Amino acid sequence: MDNNKSQKDLEVSDRRDFFKKTAALGVSALAGTSLMASGDDDAIMHHVPWGQTWGDPVTKNLYGVPSKYEHNVTRRYTKLLASGNYRASIAVTPIHESEGIITPNGLFFSRSHGGTAHINPHEFRLMIHGLVEKEIVLTLDQLKRYPSVTRTHFIECPANGGQEWRGPQFNSLQFAKGFMASAQWTGVYIKTILADLGIKPEAQWMLAEGSDNSEMGRTVPIDKVLDDAMIVWGQNGEALRPEQGYPARLLLPGWEGNLCVKWLKRLEFASEPWYCKEETSKYTALKPSGKAIQHFYANEVNSTVVSPSPEKPWTDLEDGDVIEIEGLAWSGMGTITGVDISFDGGMNYVEASLKGLVLPKSWTRWSYMHTFKKGEKLILASRAMDDAGYIQPTIDEEVSIMGVESVYHRNAVETWEVTATGEVNHVQLRTPGGVKNV
Amino acid sequence: MDNNKSQKDLEVSDRRDFFKKTAALGVSALAGTSLMASGDDDAIMHHVPWGQTWGDPVTKNLYGVPSKYEHNVTRRYTKLLASGNYRASIAVTPIHESEGIITPNGLFFSRSHGGTAHINPHEFRLMIHGLVEKEIVLTLDQLKRYPSVTRTHFIECPANGGQEWRGPQFNSLQFAKGFMASAQWTGVYIKTILADLGIKPEAQWMLAEGSDNSEMGRTVPIDKVLDDAMIVWGQNGEALRPEQGYPARLLLPGWEGNLCVKWLKRLEFASEPWYCKEETSKYTALKPSGKAIQHFYANEVNSTVVSPSPEKPWTDLEDGDVIEIEGLAWSGMGTITGVDISFDGGMNYVEASLKGLVLPKSWTRWSYMHTFKKGEKLILASRAMDDAGYIQPTIDEEVSIMGVESVYHRNAVETWEVTATGEVNHVQLRTPGGVKNV
Repeated sequence: MDNNKSQKDLEVSDRRDFFKKTAALGVSALAGTSLMASGDDDAIMHHVPWGQTWGDPVTKNLYGVPSKYEHNVTRRYTKLLASGNYRASIAVTPIHESEGIITPNGLFFSRSHGGTAHINPHEFRLMIHGLVEKEIVLTLDQLKRYPSVTRTHFIECPANGGQEWRGPQFNSLQFAKGFMASAQWTGVYIKTILADLGIKPEAQWMLAEGSDNSEMGRTVPIDKVLDDAMIVWGQNGEALRPEQGYPARLLLPGWEGNLCVKWLKRLEFASEPWYCKEETSKYTALKPSGKAIQHFYANEVNSTVVSPSPEKPWTDLEDGDVIEIEGLAWSGMGTITGVDISFDGGMNYVEASLKGLVLPKSWTRWSYMHTFKKGEKLILASRAMDDAGYIQPTIDEEVSIMGVESVYHRNAVETWEVTATGEVNHVQLRTPGGVKNV
Repeated sequence: MDNNKSQKDLEVSDRRDFFKKTAALGVSALAGTSLMASGDDDAIMHHVPWGQTWGDPVTKNLYGVPSKYEHNVTRRYTKLLASGNYRASIAVTPIHESEGIITPNGLFFSRSHGGTAHINPHEFRLMIHGLVEKEIVLTLDQLKRYPSVTRTHFIECPANGGQEWRGPQFNSLQFAKGFMASAQWTGVYIKTILADLGIKPEAQWMLAEGSDNSEMGRTVPIDKVLDDAMIVWGQNGEALRPEQGYPARLLLPGWEGNLCVKWLKRLEFASEPWYCKEETSKYTALKPSGKAIQHFYANEVNSTVVSPSPEKPWTDLEDGDVIEIEGLAWSGMGTITGVDISFDGGMNYVEASLKGLVLPKSWTRWSYMHTFKKGEKLILASRAMDDAGYIQPTIDEEVSIMGVESVYHRNAVETWEVTATGEVNHVQLRTPGGVKNV
């Protein structure tokens, strides 16, 4: 637990590991050949006329914005996910454009039950009451005086991929898997506040309530509260965004996004659980027996290929090009320990490489160097493992237990068809090796 | 170098360590007492009227923006740093508002020599030529096909704090120390490209040239190129921002920001160094002898207190409040191994705690829990060490070698006065313990 040691080698992506597991790179395999320099610098410089005019002064855009050429990289919404009301809806993250293991705040998926509230931080109050020794109301400044921590965690809606129990609904990575995003969060552990206030021994549950229009309320067992639950006010180095609950939200690392109550106004401790609307009418998982799983919290180990994707196919590749297949893996129950990749829809797997930082309850990026063969048809699939001992199930395994009526916690292996022309389609294999529901 | 192992405990900020080094927290010491709940929930809920109206739909701001209440958190510029031309100028980062160890892209400091260029990524070309076995011109898509890495690094202008050799010019943390920011960068190691192209043994230097109006050019020794030099296209999970060189820039981890050439168009390898304008007329350090240091690359070990600051004083604290003093430390030569904090301007130091991720050539956040005494005057100072064996000098030590004519590489200990009323002022101590140039 000593966090003060140097971690010098931590982010050194191990090149040898890449090459150990994949083909060695030939000179012309990686780099493009179509624009090979002829040594004629004048011809080359003809391509770069922009050096001849002034750029923008530093006085412009004091809060910066993306390049105008990136205008297509945005959150997206669809009627299919809206129930006709865009205030109780979701706009999803373009994970096909993601890099590394955090999401810029402007692209962090947005999900609310009564619309995005705009809270005046000077009017913000957080009441902590019930079975604590000292009840209290904190201003934002007072909340921020507690010693803070910064941690990298994903937040995922448990409905991520949940439209697809019967088969793919979206031939799009963004819509199929973009109900999640990741950030470096800054805030205070609730256990730190409780060490200050004192908690009564009969306190077994915590209610978290939001100040948005839906008065979002969810109940959290005390073990999670005292483990790693946080109240966060910082997101990727700045204040939380309004869609993420500005000025403060609950963060339960690895657990369902809706439990991480936004626009937080109240924490109440009690001996019995609450049965709020959003944990009875919703966010329960209907089983084939007709009974539903309640108190369903952690998002299970999961993964997806992110490159290629339906949005970023391999249609421009030449035969023999070496290309990096990249993906994300994540688990709400621990740290990713490995990811396997399949080219035949899950019949055979080989080990992929984890790259960059590998942190608990955090997006973990994985990679596999692949030699593209023109005309070769593939069914890409990835299967992640975590240090809690879990591995992603096949969809058949998952359906055999959960049926197809639930919306939530679908973490079965996803499959992506690469056609002979390099197009990528979201498909579902009910039996490994055989494409169904395309 | 095995990056694939679980790092489960890495981000667990060690609470015990905080408390070991600082006072134990009393019940009323941390939390505010002025709004203590009386148990009258109605009175409390009177503060939160916003739950009664609809919020914004998810269809709004598909690329999100900060809360309107954060409108003061922006980059800032001043005539004092502009030489009358805001295209060859700087807008600095509000590090007094920073959280964790990355900067959101909208607040990343902006420095250009001919204005921010807006490059069409479809017209982007990167020529790599000179003493390589195979000269090449790459499109952006071709560049991105190389296996990528993501790493967290600060970028710092060597003039950070450089207006202050004779004493403080800015009673502001943002202007005194905000010529820097930090991000998770995604791109390719240049050594990976060179493994593909082949490099000739006589290649000792690399020219990097930008396509902006200034045609920014800088020369890099081959050892750095083959160590950790990168071409980056991703910044905190999305495409580089225009001010950071969209669509691709050079990144030389830990070295002067101006060397990390933006809007990159050309890398040329040769046996001799270039003598570009920006490495002869500028970015050299004038010594008392009248000679200047050229080839001055790595930003040396450095640190600053970030909270409190002139912008965020302690004027609202009550006597006995326990408050976290936070700061940043960084070194272009390695990993931070420790930070000491002084309350008497550098006469006596105690050890602070490093918190969160501690990564090489990266911002490292440090912390010290302090009990505020009303009316007590302090001179806060911090002193960082790195694993290259360096420690920050005093300003007297640094001036004795460098004089006061240089603008660059001022990494002496900074001092911040806390007045009897909790105001914070930037001061400079020429002899530890005695305030001068206030």
